[in-house]
Amino acid sequence: MPREISGHAAVRNHARRLGCSTSDILLDKSYHFAAMKGLSDTHKRGRPDIVHFALMEALSTPLFLMNELRVYVYAINDKIIAIADNLRIPKSYARFEGLMVSLFRNRMIKSDEGAVLMELSDGTFEELLDSIGAEKVIGLSSSGVRSTAEKVAGFVRNTENCAFVVGAFPSGRFAQRIAEHLGPVYSIADSGLESHVVIARLIYECEKILLEKGVDHEGDKQSSEVGA
Amino acid sequence: MPREISGHAAVRNHARRLGCSTSDILLDKSYHFAAMKGLSDTHKRGRPDIVHFALMEALSTPLFLMNELRVYVYAINDKIIAIADNLRIPKSYARFEGLMVSLFRNRMIKSDEGAVLMELSDGTFEELLDSIGAEKVIGLSSSGVRSTAEKVAGFVRNTENCAFVVGAFPSGRFAQRIAEHLGPVYSIADSGLESHVVIARLIYECEKILLEKGVDHEGDKQSSEVGA
Repeated sequence: MPREISGHAAVRNHARRLGCSTSDILLDKSYHFAAMKGLSDTHKRGRPDIVHFALMEALSTPLFLMNELRVYVYAINDKIIAIADNLRIPKSYARFEGLMVSLFRNRMIKSDEGAVLMELSDGTFEELLDSIGAEKVIGLSSSGVRSTAEKVAGFVRNTENCAFVVGAFPSGRFAQRIAEHLGPVYSIADSGLESHVVIARLIYECEKILLEKGVDHEGDKQSSEVGA
Repeated sequence: MPREISGHAAVRNHARRLGCSTSDILLDKSYHFAAMKGLSDTHKRGRPDIVHFALMEALSTPLFLMNELRVYVYAINDKIIAIADNLRIPKSYARFEGLMVSLFRNRMIKSDEGAVLMELSDGTFEELLDSIGAEKVIGLSSSGVRSTAEKVAGFVRNTENCAFVVGAFPSGRFAQRIAEHLGPVYSIADSGLESHVVIARLIYECEKILLEKGVDHEGDKQSSEVGA
């Protein structure tokens, strides 16, 4: 919950109804629409449900479970969430929300054994890309060059470290400060697709290629689970 | 909420906390685990989140938006939910839950113009298949014959009316009374996949085939939206 609107009646009432503090809830358009008038970029904010679907989509794939995919969430206010290899997050939204609130409060979610499962850090989009060491950064957007998921995934054939960037907001293009770091930007359908659909198709096509290549994976690494 | 456990303390407490009646909540393992001991088939019940993800996956695809896919939910107690062509449902779980509760109470969700968007009816799985007039009924299960989403989708090439059946439960096989109506049952991965991943991949491959065929679609039909 951004501090600048945490005193708004819509936010305070929602927190009271849940019996928690305003800092313990995620900004959510379903509940805080009125309060969000005081924020910038409102058309791209307050949709944790979109992030939940997008994450669940990526984290449910064999590619991720085989440790061939690393997943990051970059949030509008230069917050970066890093997801541990092989992590499973809850499909129940209430549990997911609890997890996110805890992550924003403690900046880290650890397993009972002390392994870091999710980590929140400060950093720009550029810093995130640098830390990943991405050889190629590909954006996905309905305003990109028309291609197909199959063709776009083809980049993983010859690129050691390929980053795919998908916007997890309901509408609007990438902000300029994001767009300027994207290499090619592609569209993979005739009409706009929801983030989770783009993610599902792209990863599926990547899997076809990487499994063909018979990539050497670490599939026997144990998976972790949080919030279950 | 099944009547036989609606008097359980876990259910009554949850309803009280939400300020509603026990008949106004969906059975949810996250909250009603203790109460569910009084039910049969508990490993397949109380996961509305799985149904939400599965539905969202199907309803977000171009195939559905082009009216080339009809979607039904068959529930364990012989309840059938029919989804109107082109319908968009809320990604926010709280809104989805409200919609489902209203559907179970009123047996119908209508648009402001009176069109039926979702309808609940009584019927066995066999009756659902009959009403669809499915020429072929294909099950998807990790215990099925190993194939690929591409090959399984291939059935739509030569079948006018092809039904794909995906279990929206966390584990376990199809019940005998379901399995006996399935034609071939296929697995599309080396390991178990979550329902929404199976749905995403299968529909995507169907789209590739049907768009290749240049199917005559009703894509200009207006889409509806509920619970937004």
